[in-house]
Amino acid sequence: MSSSAVAFARQNHSRFLDELKALLRIPSVSTDPAHKDDCRKAAEALLAELKRIGLENGRLIEGEGHPLVYADWLHAAGKPTVLIYGHYDVQPPDPLDEWLSPPFEPTERNGNLYARGSADDKGQIWAQVKALESLLAANGSLPLNVRVLFEGDEEVGGEVIAQYVASKPADLKADFALVSDTELFAPGLPTLCVGLRGMIYTELEVRGAKTDLHSGMYGGAAPNPFVSIAHIIAKLKDEKGHILIPGFYDGIIPPSPEELAAWKSLPFDEEEYRKTEVGSKQLVGEAGYSVLERTWARPTVEVHGIPGGFIGAGAKTVIPAKATAKISMRLVPGMTPAKAFELYKSYVEKIAPIGVDVEVRLIHSGDPCLIPVNNRYIQAATRALHEVWGKDTVFIRSGGSIPIVGDFDHHLGLPSVMMGFSLPDDSIHAPNEKFNLKNFELGIVSLIRFLEEVGS
Amino acid sequence: MSSSAVAFARQNHSRFLDELKALLRIPSVSTDPAHKDDCRKAAEALLAELKRIGLENGRLIEGEGHPLVYADWLHAAGKPTVLIYGHYDVQPPDPLDEWLSPPFEPTERNGNLYARGSADDKGQIWAQVKALESLLAANGSLPLNVRVLFEGDEEVGGEVIAQYVASKPADLKADFALVSDTELFAPGLPTLCVGLRGMIYTELEVRGAKTDLHSGMYGGAAPNPFVSIAHIIAKLKDEKGHILIPGFYDGIIPPSPEELAAWKSLPFDEEEYRKTEVGSKQLVGEAGYSVLERTWARPTVEVHGIPGGFIGAGAKTVIPAKATAKISMRLVPGMTPAKAFELYKSYVEKIAPIGVDVEVRLIHSGDPCLIPVNNRYIQAATRALHEVWGKDTVFIRSGGSIPIVGDFDHHLGLPSVMMGFSLPDDSIHAPNEKFNLKNFELGIVSLIRFLEEVGS
Repeated sequence: MSSSAVAFARQNHSRFLDELKALLRIPSVSTDPAHKDDCRKAAEALLAELKRIGLENGRLIEGEGHPLVYADWLHAAGKPTVLIYGHYDVQPPDPLDEWLSPPFEPTERNGNLYARGSADDKGQIWAQVKALESLLAANGSLPLNVRVLFEGDEEVGGEVIAQYVASKPADLKADFALVSDTELFAPGLPTLCVGLRGMIYTELEVRGAKTDLHSGMYGGAAPNPFVSIAHIIAKLKDEKGHILIPGFYDGIIPPSPEELAAWKSLPFDEEEYRKTEVGSKQLVGEAGYSVLERTWARPTVEVHGIPGGFIGAGAKTVIPAKATAKISMRLVPGMTPAKAFELYKSYVEKIAPIGVDVEVRLIHSGDPCLIPVNNRYIQAATRALHEVWGKDTVFIRSGGSIPIVGDFDHHLGLPSVMMGFSLPDDSIHAPNEKFNLKNFELGIVSLIRFLEEVGS
Repeated sequence: MSSSAVAFARQNHSRFLDELKALLRIPSVSTDPAHKDDCRKAAEALLAELKRIGLENGRLIEGEGHPLVYADWLHAAGKPTVLIYGHYDVQPPDPLDEWLSPPFEPTERNGNLYARGSADDKGQIWAQVKALESLLAANGSLPLNVRVLFEGDEEVGGEVIAQYVASKPADLKADFALVSDTELFAPGLPTLCVGLRGMIYTELEVRGAKTDLHSGMYGGAAPNPFVSIAHIIAKLKDEKGHILIPGFYDGIIPPSPEELAAWKSLPFDEEEYRKTEVGSKQLVGEAGYSVLERTWARPTVEVHGIPGGFIGAGAKTVIPAKATAKISMRLVPGMTPAKAFELYKSYVEKIAPIGVDVEVRLIHSGDPCLIPVNNRYIQAATRALHEVWGKDTVFIRSGGSIPIVGDFDHHLGLPSVMMGFSLPDDSIHAPNEKFNLKNFELGIVSLIRFLEEVGS
């Protein structure tokens, strides 16, 4: 940790933090068309900063969504090339009334920085950028070749970057990818994520009458799409969490006995997790599987909301003409989005209640993935992390999905190092998202030392 | 039909229609606090008009909601007294994008007047007011004693008027009530409604985690309130329409064989109804009951919407902390709101899936009611209707609820004459609500002749 780049990062930390706050003030909500300009503004801010710190060939890459940000520095002859990935788009901030401070006005409280996107993922990409700045400022050069590629559609499926990666551009030639969009398993515990669930995000639309009807006049004879959608959802997953779609579990590759044993030794207490992270009176899930297995290595079906109908205050006696459920499924190794969607779709069409029409739409999808832990980049990462955090790295999976990791593998042959610094209680995708200030600081140092280690 | 009041109504019809349009432009949506002032404005407009046409003792009666409008004319010594009832509040206009013309800009198309509240119930109360004006203008007096009582909370449960009626004020002393908030069974067919379903309107809240969670990170272990609420709803009513709440059907008084026989002779074709009114590919409902039985004489459970969760455009991968279903139940003779709610509440608490807390709230309720058809006011109504429409009156029930009719009976001992002039396809509570212009005209004449008939 005696590198001059680390010293530079420490001397400039206060400025780094102020800059991150400025980035967090841009409400780059990718799913909301009203924030299209804000997404571009965030992309332009990142591009300007990459150029300012000394990266070259900086440009925005346009697709059918928000722009990709690209820049590189390729003067480390004979050294490996890293493709650095992160995303500048954020989840919608709603429900707004549950935020203790405004989502787009970054606020420090109790050693954390609260803002939408602070942990997912602007705080983490800013750590990447500031690691590069520190290395360049301290040494006038980087210890390896670097390509940076940030996207602005991660929260809406990442189609733009997926298509760009699938086109295998020469710009993305590299030896490995560095992805900072994951978390530490516990505070102070260096962590590398080596497995991700895949997903399909869908809309299930159920249509009954041609128009909304008075529920007194027609109740008992007209189909009620909300009742029908409830019947369908109840048949997707039972109350205990077992998925009822025929064939859904076929072909799943379970974790190895060694991996399961390693998970058992992680500092994880299901009751503590229930109380502090989830806060429900009981956990749910498939019998016979631990919580880590359920969230890392088992598929699931979740309902995110059911738009349509009357959702205002008070009472309205209407039988809505349609109901639309937003339903996603997480997939694990051995499953593919295409097969999962087909099984789901044909099952829903088969169980559709009488009187209603059903339509199932795929919004976006991503493959599950597993990274072998014995590659040299993962090994270099564990050495750097040990130096910074003073502990052995734990290898975990994530229940979330980072589809680009699968794309880097399939299309570019790049193994990914998923080194991220958020915490399990950072409330990403929820009100009061935060990023731990110490993790921001040590994250920058870890990234500096990792890149130095790979280049040494 | 040769009465001078009828002649006055015909001569002034165009003005009557313009006045109705002015009333319809006031967006008196009672359930929406933003329209509180509009509700008062509608009440004040009605009060001013009642005074202008010659009614006395006009005033607003304040309660915990929107004001009641009262006025009377009590100079027909020895004649019966009618309590004329209607409501000036309207349903919310959403979904707004389905209206062909703005809901609060009354628009004539194809012989109809399109506007929120045109049929339910402003067009009908305006017919009542214009019948009174015609009688007073033509004769200088009314053929019977009249009390008028309009409310502004009908669409939100009618608590204000219920409490006022329960207090049995001397102001409401009368012999019968005239309620114009119902429909003709078919165009041109004079109709009196003699039965109403009761209802309970509830909110079912299901809470899981303490905050919204990332569905990737937590999916499979954290309870999903939307999945749980689907399981609960699926257990309230099966896919065929049979209610599954234990004891719910106990004590129901079925229609008499004579009433069932009369319903069978009504001009009603289930397939036509399916195609033109409902527009679903199939009707639903309890096996062994006709559509009229299902909607008039059987209870039902309907879901109106499920607020909470992510309902925006695009994708958000969240496990919402809670889901709230707006659920109402229609009740039939032999059932009471209190018992139905208790059965429902204890059942839901019993079937609540693991991991979630459930709470059931009663928003409002109303008793079912049945009117004996052999009273002198119903008989006078049939004579007047025959004269105006040239046909025998049909006696029907309504699947909807007008709780005040039960209150008039219980607290004041008044039988109600439910004489209304909307049509089954008027889309009340839905986009593009309309009122037939011919029915508005003949409705005024029918009301004039009915009041003359009772007073003769």
